[in-house]
This record gives sequence, structure tokens and C-alpha cells, in this order.
Amino acid sequence: MVQERPFDILSKATGNQVLVRLKGGLSIRGTLSSFDAHMNVVIDNAEELNDGELKAKLGTILLRGGNIIYVSPV
Amino acid sequence: MVQERPFDILSKATGNQVLVRLKGGLSIRGTLSSFDAHMNVVIDNAEELNDGELKAKLGTILLRGGNIIYVSPV
Amino acid sequence: MVQERPFDILSKATGNQVLVRLKGGLSIRGTLSSFDAHMNVVIDNAEELNDGELKAKLGTILLRGGNIIYVSPV
Amino acid sequence: MVQERPFDILSKATGNQVLVRLKGGLSIRGTLSSFDAHMNVVIDNAEELNDGELKAKLGTILLRGGNIIYVSPV
Amino acid sequence: MVQERPFDILSKATGNQVLVRLKGGLSIRGTLSSFDAHMNVVIDNAEELNDGELKAKLGTILLRGGNIIYVSPV
Amino acid sequence: MVQERPFDILSKATGNQVLVRLKGGLSIRGTLSSFDAHMNVVIDNAEELNDGELKAKLGTILLRGGNIIYVSPV
Amino acid sequence: MVQERPFDILSKATGNQVLVRLKGGLSIRGTLSSFDAHMNVVIDNAEELNDGELKAKLGTILLRGGNIIYVSPV
Repeated sequence: MVQERPFDILSKATGNQVLVRLKGGLSIRGTLSSFDAHMNVVIDNAEELNDGELKAKLGTILLRGGNIIYVSPV
Repeated sequence: MVQERPFDILSKATGNQVLVRLKGGLSIRGTLSSFDAHMNVVIDNAEELNDGELKAKLGTILLRGGNIIYVSPV
Repeated sequence: MVQERPFDILSKATGNQVLVRLKGGLSIRGTLSSFDAHMNVVIDNAEELNDGELKAKLGTILLRGGNIIYVSPV
Repeated sequence: MVQERPFDILSKATGNQVLVRLKGGLSIRGTLSSFDAHMNVVIDNAEELNDGELKAKLGTILLRGGNIIYVSPV
Repeated sequence: MVQERPFDILSKATGNQVLVRLKGGLSIRGTLSSFDAHMNVVIDNAEELNDGELKAKLGTILLRGGNIIYVSPV
Repeated sequence: MVQERPFDILSKATGNQVLVRLKGGLSIRGTLSSFDAHMNVVIDNAEELNDGELKAKLGTILLRGGNIIYVSPV
Repeated sequence: MVQERPFDILSKATGNQVLVRLKGGLSIRGTLSSFDAHMNVVIDNAEELNDGELKAKLGTILLRGGNIIYVSPV
């Protein structure tokens, strides 16, 4: 049996929709394009959400891993 | 006698229910799926709790270890 | 004469009651089960305290060292 | 197939307009001139924005990566 | 001439009274028992002070270096 | 063609006027005297600014890189 | 020509008066006795200042570098 590791969820989610919750209240929803070992992620068609409501369309963004609380496939 | 280490509790809890308390007031309850040496954890069937009350169902999430205050098997 | 080092206090306290004070106002009291070099600790029969009053029983918890202000044998 | 990595977006954006969102509410818009592995970036013709409104013209600035929430080509 | 280094003050203060000021307003006074390279310190007969007034007797405590603002022999 | 790197802007600005914006609202204006790889900088004839207004003359100061938001030649 | 480095200012200031500004509003004035590569500094005859006014005499203190905003010879 192969041991799962946390970042496997990012490999599987690449190309799919994710929700990223950041410190400070900001949430980003969009397509996970790439990630690295620091949990830096690129999100395409990124939308900024506030309490689940669309606040702004951001296009493609590079999010620093250090500010991420969680990443969730949606 | 084998010396216990803190992360042994995560090995034992894998596949079981845990409560994760995060900085900033957020708590997550769900099934611990995997973890790594930075305490990054994947939680399946994750539920966001606020003062013990269910606030949102999040599905599967990857939580960054750096924001975790504690992980507790429940 | 052997030089004492700070973590010796954790070795001696293993299996005994400790009080752990965390950033953000939370305190945890319980039995120190294990610790590592990052001061991550496992506390059994953990109780959450607020201004010295019992607030919740948490069972076994893994506390991240990075949030600890102090650990005190009680 | 070559695996994309998050910083590839910075390579492609060099010489073009980017929006940089910082912790603490500050946003900077301007031309990405250079970056390094810590996500330190130099922005030319930098403008400070507040809720999308131009607040100040800053010329060329070196932004520390550690304060960046995201970088977005615009 | 031997160059002094900051931690020499901790070597000299071992076994003597020190005042430790922590981030977040807490101060601890007691006998410095041991320290390490991260400025983790063990204080015996530790007293918690608030604006110079005794607030609580804590016995022996292990203080994480990362929360320390200063250590002062008294 | 030689690839530019972010710290090149500090090499070019040495001996010239810079504006340094710090976390927590403080800004410093003065002559960049030296810097290192942690973005620690020495500023000569340093002036503390508050919303662009001169608040205090500080002479020569060593600023820790970790608190810097940006450095801008002026 | 020898390249200046930021910490040279600390070498020159050793034995002289410095003002140290800390995160969280505290300032310390006194004689710089020693420093290390983490900017940990020992200050003799240390005085705590609040908005430039003497608030307390602290004797000799070891200040953690991580809380320092700047050090300035006075």
C-alpha cells in the first residue's frame, strides 16, 4: 500500500476547481494550475470571495503559500 | 521500551475523526486522511465549527500546519 | 557536573501534570505524554482553561510548539 | 510534457503589468522588472492603490516577498 | 581581549534572579536555571507580573525563546 | 543579456536617497549606506515620516530587513 | 575599497549609546555592550522610553533581535 501524503490532494486537484482560504479573511476560488513545496499555488480564473459572495474577478494569480489556511477541491 | 513521539498520535488517528483548532478561531472536524512533518494535514468530510456549532461543510481540505494550534482525536 | 538544558524539564515532566500556556489566551492542563525538539507536545486528559477555570475537556491533544508561551510542571 | 511551476507565471509576467496585493491592505500596480526565489519583486512605475483607487505614485520599488499575498498579471 | 557575546549575560545570570519580558504583555521574574541557543529558558520560582505587580506564582517554567522581548538580570 | 535580480536596485541606490516603508505604519527616508542579503539596511540622515510628514530626525539607523515592506529610490 | 556591511554600524557603536526601537511600541536607550548575527544585543544602563520619556530603568538587558525595528547610535 502506498502511503498518502498531504500534497497528493494538490496533484489530484490540478486542473480542477479549488477554494483557497487565506489568513485575514480573503477566499479565492478558481482552477488550480500549479503548486510547489511551499504551497505557493497558481489559480486561473480566480475569483475573490467574501463570505461566499463574489467580490472581484482576478484572472490568474500566484498565491504565496505562507498565507494559506486551507486548500479544498470543490 | 520504545520512546513515544508527538506525531505518533497522528499516525494512530489516521482514518479516524479529529478536531483541529486553528489560529484565528476556526475549528475543523473530520477524518484525518494524511499528514506530513510540517503538520500539514488532509481532512476528509471536513466541517467548519464555530464555538462547537456546525458552520459549513467543506469536503476534503488540506490544512497548512503552520496555522494549527492543536489536533485532537475525538 | 552535567550542564542542565531547558528541555530536561520536559523529560522529567513526562507522565506528570503540566500547564501549557498558549498565545492567544488559551491554557491547557493535563499529563505530558511526549514532546519533540520543536516543543510539540502531546497532552493526555487535556483540559482547556480560561483564567484558571475549566472550559472544556479535550482528551488527548497534539499541541504545536510554535504557539506555546510556556510549559510548567504543576 | 513539462510540469508548470508557480514561479513560471512571474517569468512570463516580467516586463508586463502586475497587481501585487500585500498583507495589511496595501496593493501595488506596475511593471514587473525582476523577482527572486523569495518572491521579492521589483516593480517599475509602481502605483499604490487603495480599494482600487490610485493613492500614490512610487516609481521603482523593491517589495519584500514575505508580505505578498498574491501577484496577478493584469 | 575576549569578545563578549550576548548570551554571555545568560551564562553569568544562571542561578540568579532575572526578569523576562514577553510579547503580549506578560512578564516573568524568577531564578534562571538553564537556557539554550534559541533563548528557551527555564525559570525556577517563577512569578507572573503585571505592570510590576505579582499576579501568580508559577513554580518552574520552560519559556519559549521566540516570545521573549528581553531578559534582564535583576 | 544579464538577468536583473531584485537586490540590484539596492546596489544602484547605495549612496542615494531611498524611502523605506515598514510594517506598522512607520516610513524612513534617508541615504542608503549599506545592505545585506536579509535586506537589513543602514540609512544615513534618516528621517521618520508619518503620512509623508517629517516626524523625527534619527541620524544613522540599522533597519532590520524583516520589517520592511518596500524600499524605493526617491 | 572595502564594502560596508550593515552590522559594521553595530561594531562601531559598541561601547556607545544607542536607541533601539522594538515592535509593539517599546524603545530602549543605553550602552551597546555586545551583539550577534541575529541582532540579539546586550544594552547596559538600559532605559525604557515611551514617546521619548523615561519610563523605567532596566539595568543590563539582552534584547532578542527578532523584535527589533531599528538600532540607532545616538
